[in-house]
Amino acid sequence: MSRVNCFFVILFLWSSLRTLSQNNDSITLRKHFDYYLTRSNCYKNLEFLTTKIESRLSGSPGAAKAVIWAQKAMYEAGADTVYLQPCMVPHWIRGGKETCYSVNPKTKQKTNYAVCALGNSIATPKEGIHAPVIIVNSYNQLDSLGEKNIKGKIVFYNVYFNHTHLSTGTCYGETVTYRYSGPSKAAKYGAVATIVRSMSSINNNFPHTGVMGYDTVLTKNKIPACAISFSGADQLLEQLKSNPSLTLHLTMNCQMLPKELSYNVVGEIKGSEKPQEIIMAGGHLDAWDNGQGAHDDGAGVVQAMEVLAMYKKQHLQPKHTIRAVAFMNEENGGAGGKAYFEDAKKNQLKHIAALESDAGGFSPRGIAIDTTMGAYKKILSWKHLLDPYFVQYIKVGGHGADIGYLKEIGVPLIGFEPDGQKYFDYHHTADDTFDKVNKRELELSAGVIGSLIYLIDTKGW
Amino acid sequence: MSRVNCFFVILFLWSSLRTLSQNNDSITLRKHFDYYLTRSNCYKNLEFLTTKIESRLSGSPGAAKAVIWAQKAMYEAGADTVYLQPCMVPHWIRGGKETCYSVNPKTKQKTNYAVCALGNSIATPKEGIHAPVIIVNSYNQLDSLGEKNIKGKIVFYNVYFNHTHLSTGTCYGETVTYRYSGPSKAAKYGAVATIVRSMSSINNNFPHTGVMGYDTVLTKNKIPACAISFSGADQLLEQLKSNPSLTLHLTMNCQMLPKELSYNVVGEIKGSEKPQEIIMAGGHLDAWDNGQGAHDDGAGVVQAMEVLAMYKKQHLQPKHTIRAVAFMNEENGGAGGKAYFEDAKKNQLKHIAALESDAGGFSPRGIAIDTTMGAYKKILSWKHLLDPYFVQYIKVGGHGADIGYLKEIGVPLIGFEPDGQKYFDYHHTADDTFDKVNKRELELSAGVIGSLIYLIDTKGW
Repeated sequence: MSRVNCFFVILFLWSSLRTLSQNNDSITLRKHFDYYLTRSNCYKNLEFLTTKIESRLSGSPGAAKAVIWAQKAMYEAGADTVYLQPCMVPHWIRGGKETCYSVNPKTKQKTNYAVCALGNSIATPKEGIHAPVIIVNSYNQLDSLGEKNIKGKIVFYNVYFNHTHLSTGTCYGETVTYRYSGPSKAAKYGAVATIVRSMSSINNNFPHTGVMGYDTVLTKNKIPACAISFSGADQLLEQLKSNPSLTLHLTMNCQMLPKELSYNVVGEIKGSEKPQEIIMAGGHLDAWDNGQGAHDDGAGVVQAMEVLAMYKKQHLQPKHTIRAVAFMNEENGGAGGKAYFEDAKKNQLKHIAALESDAGGFSPRGIAIDTTMGAYKKILSWKHLLDPYFVQYIKVGGHGADIGYLKEIGVPLIGFEPDGQKYFDYHHTADDTFDKVNKRELELSAGVIGSLIYLIDTKGW
Repeated sequence: MSRVNCFFVILFLWSSLRTLSQNNDSITLRKHFDYYLTRSNCYKNLEFLTTKIESRLSGSPGAAKAVIWAQKAMYEAGADTVYLQPCMVPHWIRGGKETCYSVNPKTKQKTNYAVCALGNSIATPKEGIHAPVIIVNSYNQLDSLGEKNIKGKIVFYNVYFNHTHLSTGTCYGETVTYRYSGPSKAAKYGAVATIVRSMSSINNNFPHTGVMGYDTVLTKNKIPACAISFSGADQLLEQLKSNPSLTLHLTMNCQMLPKELSYNVVGEIKGSEKPQEIIMAGGHLDAWDNGQGAHDDGAGVVQAMEVLAMYKKQHLQPKHTIRAVAFMNEENGGAGGKAYFEDAKKNQLKHIAALESDAGGFSPRGIAIDTTMGAYKKILSWKHLLDPYFVQYIKVGGHGADIGYLKEIGVPLIGFEPDGQKYFDYHHTADDTFDKVNKRELELSAGVIGSLIYLIDTKGW
C-alpha cells in the first residue's frame, strides 16, 4: 500500500469510527430522553416538594423539612452517598400580611394596594408609616430631587421592564437594582420607606418579592422596603395623578431573626474510572415564602436529582463522580453556594464541570457556558446531538448564582437556559406554583441537563 | 488595473454590498420586533376576540359576530381593502350539556365522568344510551373483538399519547384517528356509541372535543361519539376493573342544523410594485364552542392581522400585496380554506407565499415549508436573521390546514411553528382561554411571522 493509499485508509477508518461514535451518542441520548419523558420522577418530586412541604425560605421550618425530603429523594434517585453540607443562613420572616392603602380625601374611598415586604427588610413601626409619596423613575432623578424633596416621604420607584429586550433576564437585570439598592439610596435623602414596582413581565396583581440589602456605608438609616404589584402600581399612579399629596399608609411586620443552621444536600454516584473528579448539577432548595417556589427553583432541584436517577434507573455507571446538589439560601444570602465552594476549595475537590438550572421549569432553549475556550468548543461540538431536543444555542457567559463562587477555583460553569419569556410572570410571587409547570417541558429540560452531564462524563474536555 | 485586480475589486464591492444589505435587514427586523413587543395590538385584539365575543363555532351567532369584528379589526390594522369571502358552513350545535355516569351495583354510588360530544356527532336518544362498555386499545383489537363482543356496547377507545415523541403534534397525529374515524369503525360491529380518551398531553379533567366524521361507505349506522377527559378515562378504567359489566349512561344533545352562510375575512394592503402578486398570512376565526379558542386559533388570527399593522404603523409600503386572512370553518369542515382556494384558482390570483399560524400563541420555535427547493433554500438563507428571535429551525414539510388547498395551484406554503409542548394541554377544551396566552410569547411569534412576510416581500424567491 502506498503512503497516500495508507493515509486515505486511515482517514476512512478514523472518519467511520467518528461517525459510529456520533451515532452511538445520538442513540444513547434518545434513550435518555425516552427515560425522561416516560419514566422520570421529576414531576412527582416537584409536586411533593412544592405542595406537601410548606414554604421553604432559609431558616424556616419548611426549609428544614425540604432538606430532609431532599436527602431521602436523593437516595431514592440512586445516590450512593448523600451529604448534608452545613451553612449558617439568615432567618428572615414576613410576619403578618402587609397592608398598604390610601384614602381619597374627597370621596373618603379607601384604595388597597397589593404589596409585599422585600426579603431582609425591616418592619414599619407597629402603627405603620403614614407619609406622602414621591414617584422616582431613575437614580438620576432621585439624586436631582435630593433631600429637600424626598425627606419624610415614601419613595415609589416606578421603573418598568423595557420590553424590547428579547431576554426577560435582561429586563430584570436592568430594574432589579431599584429593589436591591433602592432603599438605602432613598434613605440617604431621608425617605421613610420605599415601594418598588414589581419586576414583572406581565400586568397582574401579584407583588414580586426578592432580596434587598442595606448599604450601611452609604447610610446608617434603614427603612422598610416593599414591592407593589404591577396593577397596584398603576392604581397608585392613578390616585397620585388626582391627588399628588396623597398619604400612603404602610404596615409591614417582617423581622430578621438570629441565623439558623441549615444545609446544602449533596447526593452523589461515585465514578468508576475517576472517582476523584466531580461533575455537578444543581438547583436551589430555598424559595420565597409567598409562593410554592415551583419554577424558582423547585424545577432546578428535581432536574439535578434526576441526573442521578438517569444513571441508576438505566443501569449506567458514570466514569466520573456525578453530584446533584440542592443548594440552600440562594434567595437571600448565598450561604449554601459559599459553603459548597469553601468545602471544594478546602478539600481540593476537582470539579470537571458545575451546572445550575435556576431559570424555571420551561421548555429547553439554550446552554450558557463560562469556561475555557477548549471546553466551550467541546460542548459546541455536541450541539448537533442536543439540537433535536430544542437546544437552540450554546453561548459564552452566564451561569447560576450558587455555582458562581466555584469560578475562583477554575471550575467550568454551565447555566441551563429554558425558554424565559414567562419566568418573570411568576418569579418571587404567590403565583409561582406547581400547576404552572408543564410536565413535558420540565422533563425535556431535565433531559438536556442529564444528556449534557452524560456527554461531559463520557467525552470529557 | 489588471483583470485579476479588477476581479478582486468587484468581489470586494459585491461582498461589501451583501454585508450591508444583510446588516440593513438585521436592523429592519430589530425595528419590527421593537414594534411587536411594545406597540402591537395582537394581545388586545386577542383579548377582545376571545372574551368579548361568545363562542364562535362555524354557523353560530358568535362566529357571525367574529366575522364583523375581524372586518373592523382588519381596517384598524391598516388594510386598505377588506373582503368578506362567502362560504357555506356546517352548523353543528352541542345543545344541553352532556352527561355520562355509572352506578356501582354494590355501593349504589354514582360516578360522573367529564365528557363532551365530538363535533358533527349525532345525539343520543333523549332518554340516553344505557349500555355496557368494551375497552379497545387499537383498531386491530377492535377487528379481533368483532361483532360478537361489540354489538350493543359502548366502545371506549383508550389510546394514550406516546410521550416519547418530541413533537406533541406527532402524539396527536397518532391518536386522532380514534376520534375521527373510530365511531364508524365501531358502528360497523354494532356498537351503540363511542367514547374516546381525550387527545390530551396532560392528566386533568377537561374533555377535548374535535371533529369526527361518519364513514357512510363503511356503515350506514351512525352512532353518538364523545370524548372523555384524561382523568375521567382513568376513573372509568378503575370502575370497569371492579365491575367489567358496568352499565354506562350517556346523554348527548347535539344536533346538525342546516348549513349557514359564513365568511372568510380577507384584509389587504395593495403592493406598490407588484400589486397582482400576493403574500398571505392567515389563521382561523372559528373555534370549538367549549372554550375561548385563544390558542386555537385566536392567536393565529391576530398574528396574521398584525402583519398589516406592522406595515401601516411603521409607514412601510410593501412591494407585493399583503393579505391577512381569518379563515372560517377550519375546525369542522374546511369550507373557508376551500372557498379561498377556489377564488384564487378561478381568478388566477398569483400567490408568492401563503403562511398559516395554527399551532398556538406560544414562543417561536421554527418554520415549516412546503414548496420548491429554491424557495426553501432562500428562506433557509435568512435563518441567521431570524435566529435571534428564537427561530430554532427551518424545516421541509408541514403547513396549516386552511392554506393546504392552495398547493394544487403551486403556492409555496409555510407553517409557523411555536413551541408546542403545551398545545395539547388546552387544545379543543374549555381551558383554551385568553389567560393561557402570554403577551410576549404571542408578540414574539407575531414578530417572526411579520418579519418572514417582510423578507419574502423585499427579497422574493
